[in-house]
Amino acid sequence: MTQTIHPLDVVLHKRDGRVLTDDEIQAFIHALVHRTPQNQLVTDAQIAAFLMAVFHRGLTPQELATLTSAMRYSGETFDASPLHTFTVDKHSTGGVGDKTSLLIAPILAAAGLASPTPAGIPSICVPMISGRSLGHTGGTLDKLETIPGFNTQLTLDQIFLSLEKCGAALVGQTPRLVPADRILYALRDHTGTVESPYLITASIMSKKLAEDLNALVLDVKTGSGAFMPTYEQSKLLAELMVQTGESSGTRTIALLTNHDEPLGRFAGNWVEVWECVDIMRARRIEDRHPMSADLIQLSNILSGWMLHLAGHAPTPEAGAKLSDELLLSGAAFKAWLRIVAIQCGDVSLFHDPAAHHQPTASRTLTATHAGYLASMDCKQVGWAVQRLGAGRAKPGDPVSAHAGIEMHAKLGDPIKAGQPLVTLFTEDVSLLDEPEAMLRETLHIAATPPQLQPSIREVITRS
Amino acid sequence: MTQTIHPLDVVLHKRDGRVLTDDEIQAFIHALVHRTPQNQLVTDAQIAAFLMAVFHRGLTPQELATLTSAMRYSGETFDASPLHTFTVDKHSTGGVGDKTSLLIAPILAAAGLASPTPAGIPSICVPMISGRSLGHTGGTLDKLETIPGFNTQLTLDQIFLSLEKCGAALVGQTPRLVPADRILYALRDHTGTVESPYLITASIMSKKLAEDLNALVLDVKTGSGAFMPTYEQSKLLAELMVQTGESSGTRTIALLTNHDEPLGRFAGNWVEVWECVDIMRARRIEDRHPMSADLIQLSNILSGWMLHLAGHAPTPEAGAKLSDELLLSGAAFKAWLRIVAIQCGDVSLFHDPAAHHQPTASRTLTATHAGYLASMDCKQVGWAVQRLGAGRAKPGDPVSAHAGIEMHAKLGDPIKAGQPLVTLFTEDVSLLDEPEAMLRETLHIAATPPQLQPSIREVITRS
Repeated sequence: MTQTIHPLDVVLHKRDGRVLTDDEIQAFIHALVHRTPQNQLVTDAQIAAFLMAVFHRGLTPQELATLTSAMRYSGETFDASPLHTFTVDKHSTGGVGDKTSLLIAPILAAAGLASPTPAGIPSICVPMISGRSLGHTGGTLDKLETIPGFNTQLTLDQIFLSLEKCGAALVGQTPRLVPADRILYALRDHTGTVESPYLITASIMSKKLAEDLNALVLDVKTGSGAFMPTYEQSKLLAELMVQTGESSGTRTIALLTNHDEPLGRFAGNWVEVWECVDIMRARRIEDRHPMSADLIQLSNILSGWMLHLAGHAPTPEAGAKLSDELLLSGAAFKAWLRIVAIQCGDVSLFHDPAAHHQPTASRTLTATHAGYLASMDCKQVGWAVQRLGAGRAKPGDPVSAHAGIEMHAKLGDPIKAGQPLVTLFTEDVSLLDEPEAMLRETLHIAATPPQLQPSIREVITRS
Repeated sequence: MTQTIHPLDVVLHKRDGRVLTDDEIQAFIHALVHRTPQNQLVTDAQIAAFLMAVFHRGLTPQELATLTSAMRYSGETFDASPLHTFTVDKHSTGGVGDKTSLLIAPILAAAGLASPTPAGIPSICVPMISGRSLGHTGGTLDKLETIPGFNTQLTLDQIFLSLEKCGAALVGQTPRLVPADRILYALRDHTGTVESPYLITASIMSKKLAEDLNALVLDVKTGSGAFMPTYEQSKLLAELMVQTGESSGTRTIALLTNHDEPLGRFAGNWVEVWECVDIMRARRIEDRHPMSADLIQLSNILSGWMLHLAGHAPTPEAGAKLSDELLLSGAAFKAWLRIVAIQCGDVSLFHDPAAHHQPTASRTLTATHAGYLASMDCKQVGWAVQRLGAGRAKPGDPVSAHAGIEMHAKLGDPIKAGQPLVTLFTEDVSLLDEPEAMLRETLHIAATPPQLQPSIREVITRS
């Protein structure tokens, strides 16, 4: 018999820096999910006060694990156990031109399809629940939905079926999955409590763990394009997520990756699908576009860790090599066609993805002087992409399929005067000027080459 | 031309410890007062987040002055200037048996009536806007409303008229006075942000300064009966209030007073009116009840400061002496009758206030052994009074007129075995047991007399 726990007492205890009990946290999340307009078990104001108290006080590892678990089980959850397979996913904290999901899901599915279980199920399954464009970063769902017919809104039963048939599902959150996060996220956004690493961890991990994963690989961005403003904060977030995943029994590792420029050749929506299709269709290294090299490398490293954790490679490095083989052999592209087809997407466009790119206006920015591409504020580049129409100013806004940018140089590249630096695409010509000015302002050419950070700064595993 | 300020940005700035501009604070309070259900300029959740951020970050003197001022002017304000008199009030942070207001208002009114202005107005006026019982503490309005007919809900015009005629008005907050505080206080109570000294200061001072005061004397309690848990926190609160009052042009001083036991003889509602009437009717020191000595002393000290600030006494000490003379001469009682009459109260009861005390049940707690009354948790004594029916569990609950306690001993008094310590009164016999147990538990008799704190611990004036 436990006494009734009042949400206000939970707020008071966290406010005063006391460690909350499991019962307190669970009662708070229970009240939040089960309240009705008639019966406000906990009010928006109390939730907001709780969030701001957590922002200032933080959470112990035990509190964070309990909060994440309470959120994870606040609605329906995916149950992968009948598949008798290895479930694995990756999550990125968000970037500009970061389209690794579109490569990694097919790569892992290809590996799983190549070695089915005795029941004929892919031996690796990727139940990848993704999000939409947010702020200066792109969203996997927005990119996928540029494929005509592609349905990201599957039920849990449909996700199950997709995994069974093709080893991956690329979907949005279902309305009943982790409802506590939906409520908390809307309030965080509204009350200035988005940036807490504890609340970010609980939000991300509750949703990822609701996928019923054996393993999870996290791509935590750091650098000028990352949400977290410092390396230390990115690292803290990575550590919190690894600790929380491991404490729930999911093997979790995090890569701290450098994000000082857009990843790959394009940033936008359809242009990113196009870039991935080009990569998956290339059968030789020399057929790959040189601007995509960093994207391919990071995708292989992340896939390599996933393949290794799934037991398909003795080391992450061997996994990365296997990943590249799955790309160059065409196995990943075959899995991709299967995933898109089962989600009702039109695969005919993939024969000539460039032809489907139909912006109504474009403009190319060229170098005013020679030197080296020395630096940029990658976040500002992301905002320029958003302003071109590829992102949204607020949730629910439509996004443009064909807006975006193509980068023509990477940081450290030698630049000739007059050479193209970046091309802007939009479906509304009036939207070109501001992003152009933003990009012109932030792309710096210097006389000497810059000092660049390594692409993988650090790997965080359970200690 | 100022840019539109979004309440969310104000939350973010305070969250991050930035100093808010005057414009930001004013815009936030403006949004709070002018929002409608259809147009939520700022939501409860955002206000709650702001309050919790202030709880953790505090406010600079300038921010606190601006917040207080924005709240003060958020609705109608009292304008005393046409009276051409000296307006002064006192405020207590709340205590058990603290009925000094019922003595101080008549004392000051008596002084003002004795020396009218050329226009015939009392030369001192006390526009005393008081509150209700809250938690373990009593409320002046609840006490006054035990006088049949007494009307505490005057309009500002009626307050003006009362001051003009009798030098004091004992009233409740009008619905349109300081509406920002009403909204903020309800949310603080609901979201665990009551205990911030900054928010307490803004709440108290916005209401007091809305009385248009020349001077204000604050009685800030410290000790086991005080809201603030430590001496340092009481002192900080006193300093914040003095600083905020002075910065708005009101001469403000604070007394840090010890509150380790109920003040005076009684705690409750009618019993406290009774005690004050007895004091005001006593023409000789020896006619005063010995249990009322601490109450009379504190009332004279507070009145002494007010008389001094109003220019009626060269020093606070001379003011205290004048105050006692106004009590013993009957001038204060005469002013009291005038105040009560103008507010429609039945003054006939004051001839025999003991006869009007009509609890339906009472019980006296006696000493189990001899010694000295050594200590008590004065807050627990207050909660016992509340449980007897004199206070309320939540705003809007009715209070009992005749519930309360009579103390028969003061801290440090020698106690004989079997001697009465406290008598409990209630209008519901079923409410006796729990408060009796609470009082029995907290009244400690020891073999040696206790070390007592002086009644005035410190005086805080502008530095």
